[in-house]
This record gives sequence, structure tokens and C-alpha cells, in this order.
Amino acid sequence: MPSNEGTKQEFSPQYVDLVIVGAGPAGLMMAMWAAKCGIKTKIVDKRGTKIFNGQADGLQCRTLEIFDSFGFGHRAWIESNHMLEICLWNPDKDGIIRRSDRIPDTIPGISRFQQVVLHQGRIERFFLDTIESCSDIRVERGVMPSKMELDESLFEDNEAYPISIRLRHLSEDEATPKQTATSANGTVVQDGLFRSNLAPDDTQELLNGAKLNAKANSEEIVHAKYVLGADGAHSWVREQLGFKLEGDSTDYIWGVLDIVPITDFPDIRMRCAIHSASEGSVMVIPRENKLVRLYIQLTRTEKLGEGGSRADRSKITPETILQSAQRIMAPYKITYRKLDWWTAYQIGQRVGTQFSFGERVFLAGDAVHTHSPKAGQGMNVSMQDTFNLGWKIANVVKGVSDRSILKTYQSERRKNAQDLIDFDHRFSRLFSGRPAKDVMDEEGISMEEFKDAFVKGNLFASGIAVEYGASILVAKPGSSTKQGDGTDVAVHSGLRVISTPSLAPKIELGKRIPSFKVLNQSDARPSHLQELLRSNGRWRVVTFVGDIRDSNQASKLKVLGDKLASPDSFLHRFTPPPPARYDDVFELLVVHNTPRRETTIFDFPPVWHPYDEVDGWDYWKIFVDDESYHEGHGEIFKNLEISSQGCNVILRPDQHVSYVGPMEGYEELDKFFSAFMISPRVTTKAGT
Amino acid sequence: MPSNEGTKQEFSPQYVDLVIVGAGPAGLMMAMWAAKCGIKTKIVDKRGTKIFNGQADGLQCRTLEIFDSFGFGHRAWIESNHMLEICLWNPDKDGIIRRSDRIPDTIPGISRFQQVVLHQGRIERFFLDTIESCSDIRVERGVMPSKMELDESLFEDNEAYPISIRLRHLSEDEATPKQTATSANGTVVQDGLFRSNLAPDDTQELLNGAKLNAKANSEEIVHAKYVLGADGAHSWVREQLGFKLEGDSTDYIWGVLDIVPITDFPDIRMRCAIHSASEGSVMVIPRENKLVRLYIQLTRTEKLGEGGSRADRSKITPETILQSAQRIMAPYKITYRKLDWWTAYQIGQRVGTQFSFGERVFLAGDAVHTHSPKAGQGMNVSMQDTFNLGWKIANVVKGVSDRSILKTYQSERRKNAQDLIDFDHRFSRLFSGRPAKDVMDEEGISMEEFKDAFVKGNLFASGIAVEYGASILVAKPGSSTKQGDGTDVAVHSGLRVISTPSLAPKIELGKRIPSFKVLNQSDARPSHLQELLRSNGRWRVVTFVGDIRDSNQASKLKVLGDKLASPDSFLHRFTPPPPARYDDVFELLVVHNTPRRETTIFDFPPVWHPYDEVDGWDYWKIFVDDESYHEGHGEIFKNLEISSQGCNVILRPDQHVSYVGPMEGYEELDKFFSAFMISPRVTTKAGT
Repeated sequence: MPSNEGTKQEFSPQYVDLVIVGAGPAGLMMAMWAAKCGIKTKIVDKRGTKIFNGQADGLQCRTLEIFDSFGFGHRAWIESNHMLEICLWNPDKDGIIRRSDRIPDTIPGISRFQQVVLHQGRIERFFLDTIESCSDIRVERGVMPSKMELDESLFEDNEAYPISIRLRHLSEDEATPKQTATSANGTVVQDGLFRSNLAPDDTQELLNGAKLNAKANSEEIVHAKYVLGADGAHSWVREQLGFKLEGDSTDYIWGVLDIVPITDFPDIRMRCAIHSASEGSVMVIPRENKLVRLYIQLTRTEKLGEGGSRADRSKITPETILQSAQRIMAPYKITYRKLDWWTAYQIGQRVGTQFSFGERVFLAGDAVHTHSPKAGQGMNVSMQDTFNLGWKIANVVKGVSDRSILKTYQSERRKNAQDLIDFDHRFSRLFSGRPAKDVMDEEGISMEEFKDAFVKGNLFASGIAVEYGASILVAKPGSSTKQGDGTDVAVHSGLRVISTPSLAPKIELGKRIPSFKVLNQSDARPSHLQELLRSNGRWRVVTFVGDIRDSNQASKLKVLGDKLASPDSFLHRFTPPPPARYDDVFELLVVHNTPRRETTIFDFPPVWHPYDEVDGWDYWKIFVDDESYHEGHGEIFKNLEISSQGCNVILRPDQHVSYVGPMEGYEELDKFFSAFMISPRVTTKAGT
Repeated sequence: MPSNEGTKQEFSPQYVDLVIVGAGPAGLMMAMWAAKCGIKTKIVDKRGTKIFNGQADGLQCRTLEIFDSFGFGHRAWIESNHMLEICLWNPDKDGIIRRSDRIPDTIPGISRFQQVVLHQGRIERFFLDTIESCSDIRVERGVMPSKMELDESLFEDNEAYPISIRLRHLSEDEATPKQTATSANGTVVQDGLFRSNLAPDDTQELLNGAKLNAKANSEEIVHAKYVLGADGAHSWVREQLGFKLEGDSTDYIWGVLDIVPITDFPDIRMRCAIHSASEGSVMVIPRENKLVRLYIQLTRTEKLGEGGSRADRSKITPETILQSAQRIMAPYKITYRKLDWWTAYQIGQRVGTQFSFGERVFLAGDAVHTHSPKAGQGMNVSMQDTFNLGWKIANVVKGVSDRSILKTYQSERRKNAQDLIDFDHRFSRLFSGRPAKDVMDEEGISMEEFKDAFVKGNLFASGIAVEYGASILVAKPGSSTKQGDGTDVAVHSGLRVISTPSLAPKIELGKRIPSFKVLNQSDARPSHLQELLRSNGRWRVVTFVGDIRDSNQASKLKVLGDKLASPDSFLHRFTPPPPARYDDVFELLVVHNTPRRETTIFDFPPVWHPYDEVDGWDYWKIFVDDESYHEGHGEIFKNLEISSQGCNVILRPDQHVSYVGPMEGYEELDKFFSAFMISPRVTTKAGT
């Protein structure tokens, strides 16, 4: 045991629902959920300040959809550089690089956003601002855990705090490691050219950095219900649990330069994949503020160690990386006067054996998967880990759900990480390999193969294709263990429900619901369906009714409305009594395609326009598929191929589809929720 | 002369380019320009804090375009309530109100924005944040002018400070009048229900309010080149100049309630014009945060004064206003539990005789025009006053333009105010009049006439139709005095240029340029043309070249490029030497319709992709009319009906069109700018 000599002690144990270790993107996404759902949370980071430049970059369209669901998608969209086209450059028959093809960067139609690039410091800023605006959660910097104790006997007790964690406040020196300390061979560019890069809203952050010392070397004890380790590739939390990362590294060595390029290469503002005949490859990622990131294969770096497998990092400098780029991109010229950041790395792919310990301590992000950065996946997949986990923990902490739903985190996300690692493995090989000289050159990479992989990879890389398997949260046929990472997340209570996907073939079970525009019935305002699905921890039941002038549809809606309004409906059983609002746990939405002008909200059963004695009727639950004045016609019924019979759709708080079934299927809805929801009137022991 | 006894004196005269009196929307728009253009500015307001609720509401689409040109349009767009449809309600043959018609609120296609509603406090917040982010200009609150002295002999001296203004720091009591002190009979709702309305980013403002006392009762002297009086209907600055408002008030009395309505009226979230048979009219304006503003005609309020022309305000309360609404909207029921704000007013229309004194002291906003609030014009027209003036003063102060351009402010904006007053007069009569019982009822208002006026009024009310007359800044045929308010703003130097509008019939001289999407040649990113026209004080010359594979067009572009690049071009004569950037005064843009994939920026003359030794080539000057991957095809050549010969277009810094002419017309461009621009190499007397 380490001695505590020389360390001040503070004995004021705190009790919190959640401790988050690490305030990078994965940790902040978790804190974002905690803020929106209102659970008591402590988030610490050993670094003294947030990061200000360099590091991760690409934002997938799914990530932007997620940001938008928390209310800050527009900030990323406005500040970022948008990538529209990928240009493939390859050697011609004389070995000179030529543009051989162009493909759209984001597949048209898959999302209302397209892939963009923005540095991690800004993304952290958006999280911090949004968390601050809706909660009292604040990142405590210069703080790291020194000890974690688990009482496994309390793991299944919802009211218990089975984890105690000792936190140490670092001295200023300890809290300000080199910014790029977690990157292999990274270093901070010292010339200060980019001081202006600091956005004005980061000033306070810098000032706060100076205040760290007051608590330096003191310690505190926190008792927590749940802990998240989002503390990076060298995760302290993972180490405490004794979990391993499995996988391997490759021989491929890459350098990264963030520069303002001076070049006659005509596609420098496009995303480019440049394969030279024999000098390796360059990937061009145009960024904000005139910057361009170049990923440059280093084919001449000497190797060290057994069999020469590890790169000699001492030989890698911005100059040698630039020289590699110049050789690959010749006959075009490229140089720079402004260098913002640089690093180098050796590609490897690893994934954690376990993502949680007893569904009390969870790991996310780099702590459970590492891979090459070029596909722009790292930050996105890390944030999507905790986007998957946050609402589940919040719903359990708040007594809405039982703990069985927490197992789906490992099942869903470990499977996803394995897919990512496989993707990255294939992609890296294609990218780092030498182009084939001709069809007889079997060792080289055929450019047709490369383009094909790029196009397919694009859908994977968008984040839209993520599909969760059958589980207590996804009413899909088949085996939950086979569809996930092997974890058993099936419904064992006899309450299993199976969807009827034929009622809406384009609403794919386990995937996030696609989005088209609908109009609010009451004010004719167009919104994307997804804009209605804010991330606030609520489940949604969306009823696609069709045309209510059809008496058959109208009568099914009335029956459904009556059952929902009944005091023993799942809506009433699982929603806490006031002051909880009628839509605190479930939001009921209707989408219809009666002509907008021929109906009003008062033609719909009252459960879809609830009355509040202070606020009057609720005008934000009924939507219509009709032509808008200024933004076209979303045609959501046609685009989602909704059956003329209509359907009910259950959406998880993360917008993934749990269930599709007939409008007459009220009982299936009830059964689905009954499998894991808790009635608050029982668990709060009111009156005892 | 008032005595200064009891007042502390501070003798530290300051020298500034501009003093702005009043930090409402008109004053803040002026400060916004000053911040973007970098001129030394002091802005004061007698109120101790900004306002937090109530007051003006509607934002026209042109106002949103302007906000967007400063970078905060999206904030207004996201927070506001969007109004899509106007519902007209009229008595049927039995005297019962029925929905008789619907029209789109914003005419489809006229702007990329639509009319929205957001309270003035938020709009002021957006200005304050943006000004703070790009300048050191800060609003000084609790400060009002007490004396202004003008030295007319210095008015034509560009380097002089001909105005001295004495400013008094108020005590806290003086600085916190009732928030609605400027509204007739307004009062603050005291129940605190809407404390939550205070956005978190207003907290600092409230804290600052408490600091006023430190300087209370002290005075300071400021010497200024220019002064703007944006100090409201009771303008102190206007009074000092002895200028009058001319016009009249009417008999119509209206009450205003901002409430969360509890009602079965089905169109309460639409903008509605409701005419009852005999109880008067209601206008419904749905707002943000579930609020609805009701403008309610008060037909039973007793009159006072000679001939009973003034309303007895003591009889007007929220209860009496609500009762009027209930009578008008019967048989529908309406009431409320939450009241955010209320007021009442008697309609009048007045316009100032002069908008400036010697082009040194200017008046804007309510100081020079008042009218009824219902058309949602007041705040918009006020901000557009100073949006017209700000860049002109900045360009004169910076030595880019001579003072002759300043006369166009009165010519352009007084004319606009007169049009507004005429519009409001007609509109108010139609709105406040009793509906006609039948076609024989000549005193009543025919509902066809009303709808027709509404539809026509909508274009006017959008702000898009504003058209400035011939002047030194608009190269249009005809008489400048006849096209403006009578002020002589013609070119007298023999340098008058007349446009060739047939080259682009949809780019109307004197109006703001319409916007369609174009793609950046270098990265394929779609933007609206207007998004490229940021408000930063720069003039733009946009060359619509057509297809550069056509050798005729390519050769005209080359000739134009060579002339622009010549050392004696207007570009070089009027742009200061470095460190000024090549585009500090003029930004040269090209829009072409060569297929995007068949060209690169290096196929264009270098003046459109300037080289900088640190930043490399400029990738943001060449745009293409082509299909985008995700946002359709803007078809700007087709939509603007650009001639196959191409054309040059001069755009003012406020996006209004100065000139349209042939690509071969370099000499016209030169002549146009020579009529009012100043060569910095002469005026800065370098080397002496």
C-alpha cells in the first residue's frame, strides 16, 4: 500500500449516484446524460485544463445527430469544416499520382448531417457549456483516483453505494502533463502561432487552471452507486479491475501533421487518399481555420526491438514527416509556415475483454478499444459508448428501470467495438499497402478493391449502421447472445415480445430511427422527426396512424388512446405521481397523414394533447406528414414504408428502435415495458 | 444652464470615433458594425440593465439575414417561435367567428429565413455576446448625456472631433426605472412566475447592475467624430437638435397580453387576425416558451381630453383587456394562469423631419419613427436604420470613403420610414375597422380587401422589398431626389455610372441581392450566396462568368483579372498597403457554372485565388453553380436570370446591389468607386 505521508487528508465522505473518471469526450457524454436526467454525479480528470488544440477530429453524422439531440449540434455544424467529397489519387502507368476517382464523403440521404471535422477542444467546450446550462455538474480537474473498493454483496441493492473511491487533488505540476502525453511521441508545438486558436469561451478554463493549487495534495472519499472509467488507453480504472485489452499492433508507422499547407496540390481542401507508387500513402483531412491534417505513412523509419517491430521514435520529427509527404505527393509541392500540432503512431487494434464489472463499474472509450485514427472513428465510438450507457444508468438510479438493462451495455458496445476493430484492420491494410502495379501483381492492393472498401467503409464510418441485437431492450427475433458479444441479455420473465417489422420495413429494429420532416399539427412548423426525440432519458411511443378520416384508423386510435389513458396502463403504472409530468417517463407522439388543414388536435384522443391546469393543452405531441410552405414535403409515411394499417413504434431514449407492432397491439407495448420497468408507487414505499 | 452642484466631476476627456446613445436594438446594431469594422466607440444607456422580457417581438426574414451576416442568425432561429401560417377569422352570416382563410406567413421563396418571434431581451443578448467576442466595446449602463456641443466649422474635417458630449453616471435609483417605462401604461408583472425566463447568460448582466453605484453622479466629457441618437421615442439627442416628429395619433386603442393561454381556440399557435362582428379585433402572435401575445382592440375604453380623443388609461388592466379578448373570441373560451407582460397603446404614426444634423449627429429607430406594433415592424426597421448607417460611418472614419456617402442615410432611411408609416396607416385602419356586414355595407371593411392587404403587406413586412434609390452608392437611372426623401445624393463629379440591369434582371438595383446556393470550388461545400457576404464593412465585386470552357468567357475573365491585378486598379489604389490584407476593402468573388469536377481554382486568374506567403492560396473566392451531394442544386444562374455574357455585380457592405454591368466594363467599376473612395496612400501622408 502506498504511504500517505506528506498528503493532507480531508474526511468528508460524499455520496453520489455516479463517479466519472476522465473528462474526455466519453466521460463528458456520460456527464451530459447525467445532467439531462438529473442524477447526482461527480466527474474528475487528472489533467489541469481541457485540451485546446490537436487530437481527434472527425465527427460522424450519427455523432452530430446525437449532439443535436442534446441541443448543441448546430455549434459543431457551424464551426467545423465540412467534408463533402473523397478524392482518390493513385499512380498512373508512369508512376505519377493522378486523381483516379471521386466519391461523396457521406452517403447522400443517410442522415440530415454530413461528416465534419473539428478539434476535440471545441467539442469538449460544447459539452461543458451544455452541462453547465442544465445542471450543477462541473468537471473537477487535477483530480485522480488513488484507490477503489467494491462491496460485491451490495451490487444488487438499488439503494446501496457499493463503491468507495479515494480521490487525490494533484499539485499544479502533476496536473499539467504535456498536452499530448497520451499520444505516442506527441509533443506540443511551442511557437505560439496558434495562441489565437483559443476561443474566447475557453478563457475561464485557463483561469480555473491556476486555482488548482488550493486543494493540492488533499484527498477525499466518495461513495458511489456507479463508476465509469473513461480514462483513456492507460485506464487506471481498468487496471484496478484487472481487465485486459486483447489484440495486436502492426508494422505500419504513420505521422500526423496539422498545418496550414502551402501547396499546388489541387484537392488539398478535399478528403484525399493518395497512394504513391512506392513511397507510401497520405490521407488529407481538411480542417477548420485553414488547417489541413495530413496522415503520412512513414516507410523509411528505422525499427527497433526484437525483429525490428517497434519504430525508432527518436528519428521522427515534423521535418521527417513532411519529407515523407513531399515524396508521396510529388510532383506536387507541399510545405508550411504554420504547424499547429503533430504526432506519430504505430497502428494497432485492441479490444477489452469485459466492459463492466458486475454492472457497477463500467469502462468506455479508449479504455476498452484502440485502433488507428485515420477512419475518424475513435472519438465517435467512444462518445457512442457512453451515449448507450448514460440513460440506462440514469433510469436505474431514478427507479424507473430495474438493473437488468445494464447488461445490454457490454452486449451492445463490445460487439460494436469488435466490428470496429475488424473494420479498422481491413481498412489499415488497404491503406498502408503498396498499390498493385497491374492485375498480375498479387501482393499490391488493387485500386478497385480499395475504392470498394472505401465506399462500404463509409456507411460503417457514418455511425448510422450500428444495429443492436435482440435483448430486453430490443424486441427482435433470434438469440441475444449470438447477436451481441455473447452476454445473456434475453428476456427471461415470460414477457418477451417480438416485433412485426413488416409494418414499417425502413424502421429497422436495433438501429436508430431514420429521420424525415413532419409538421407540427398546431403551428405547421416543419421539424425532422429526430429533432422531436431530444435526449432527456424518456422513452417514446410513436403511433403512425395514417389518415384519421379513415374510420378504421380513427377507431383503432381511439381504442389505443383509451387503453393508454386507463389508470392501469403502463403509462400510469410506471410514471411517478405529480409533480412528475405526464410525459416524464414516456412521451406519446402521433404522426398522421390526414391533410393538415382538415383537422385539429381536438380531433385526436386527449392522451395525445394532455391538459395541464397552468399550461393549458399540450400542442407538441401531434405531427402531420404534409407539404410545408418553405421546406418541402418529408413524406415520412412513404419513406419509412409504413403500412396502411399504421403501427406503433417504441424508441429507446437513445433513438434506437425497440419495437414495431400493430396499432391494435397495446398489450405488446405493456408487456415490453413490464419486462424491465419498475412501478414507482411500489418501490418508493410511500406511506411506510 | 443646469447647475452641477452635488455632482462629482471627472476631468479625463476621451476621444472616440463614435458615441452611441441608447443600447436598444438600433444602438446595438450600430455598435455591432463598429465592433466588426474596428472603430473606437462608446455606447451608453440610461437604463441600469438590459431588458429581460416583454417588448418587441417579430423578426422579419431580412432581419434574420442581417443577424446571420454578423454570425448570430442561428441563435435567433433556434430560440424563436417560427410563424408559418396566418389564419383569418371572420364573422359568418350569424355573426359567429369562423376561420375564413389561411395564407403563408412568409411568402415562400423570398428568403432562406421565415418570420419568427423572440423577445427583445434575447436579441440584445445576441448582440452583446457577438460585440464582446470581436471587440472591446462594452455597453456602459446607467449613463446618460447631459450636454452636447457641436463645432460646425469642423464638420467637413475628417480628422476633427467636432462634437463634445457630457455624460452623467446615474445613481442606482435613477438607472432602474420601471422596465416598461417607455410603453404607454405598461407595468411590470410582479408575481415572479417568469423568473425562469432569465437565460443563464444574463446572470452577469444582473450582477453588473449592482456595480453601477461606484461611478454614480460623476460626469465625463467625450469628444466624438460622430454621434448616434438611438434613444427612443423621447430621444434626448433629437431634442437637442430641435428636430420634430410629424404625424398624428388615431382613435384606436389596443391592449397587449403576453400569456400562456388556456383555450379551446384551435389556431392559438398560429398567427391569427380575428375580426368579431361588433366587439373589435384580436391579433394572435404565438411566441417562444408556450407564450402567446394577444393584441386586443379595446372598444369600450372611455376617452378623455378635448373631444374625447385620449384613452382613460386608468381603466385599462390585464383583466379588462382579457375580457375584451373573451368577447371578441367567443364562443371560444380563453383565459390564463401565467401572465408574462402586458401593456396598452393608442395607435399613431409619426416620422422625423430630419435624420441627421450635418452628417455628424444621426438619429435612428424610435427617435425618428413611431407607429403601431402589430405589423412586427418597429424593432426591425430600427435595426435596419443603423444597419444602413454603421458601415458608412465606419468607412468614412477609416479613411476608405469620403463623407459624401453619409447623406444617403437620410435619403434611404427617411424614405423607408415614410413608406412604413403609410403602410401602417392603411394596415391599422383595416385591422381596427368593423367588418362589413355585406357588400352594401360601405363603412365596414371588406374581408377580401383585408386579405388582399395582408398578402401585399406581407412582402413589405418581410423587409426584403426595401429598395434604395439612385445615389452615389446605387448606380441606377433617374433622379436621386425623387427616389429618396428629397435629399440630394447624386454623383456630381462627372463619375456617374449607369448599370445594365438586363444582364441580370433578378438582381434588382438598390435591393438586397437574392440568395441561392453555390458550391465552393475547392471543397464542394454548399453555401447560400448570402452566407459569403459577411457584414465586415467590405465591398464586394461578384463576377458571374458562366462556363470558362467557353473561350470567350474565359478570355473576358482573363482581361478583367489582368486589369484588377494592375497596380493602378481601383483595387490597389483604394486598398491600404500591408499589413492590410488584399481583401480588406474589396472582396472579389467569382461564380461560374463550369461543371465543378472539370476545373480547379488554378484555371482562374490569380486575382481570384490570391497567394499569401504564410497561408498559401486563398480557397474561398471561387464558387460554382452545380449540383451538391446533399443540398440540391442552387441554379443561381437560372434563378437570377444571368445573361450568357456574364456580368459584374457590385454589392455594398450591407448586401444591397449598387451596380450590374458587363464583364468588359472594368472602367465602370473603377469609375463607380472613384466617385467616393479615397486613396489611403494620399491621405495617410506616409513618409511626411
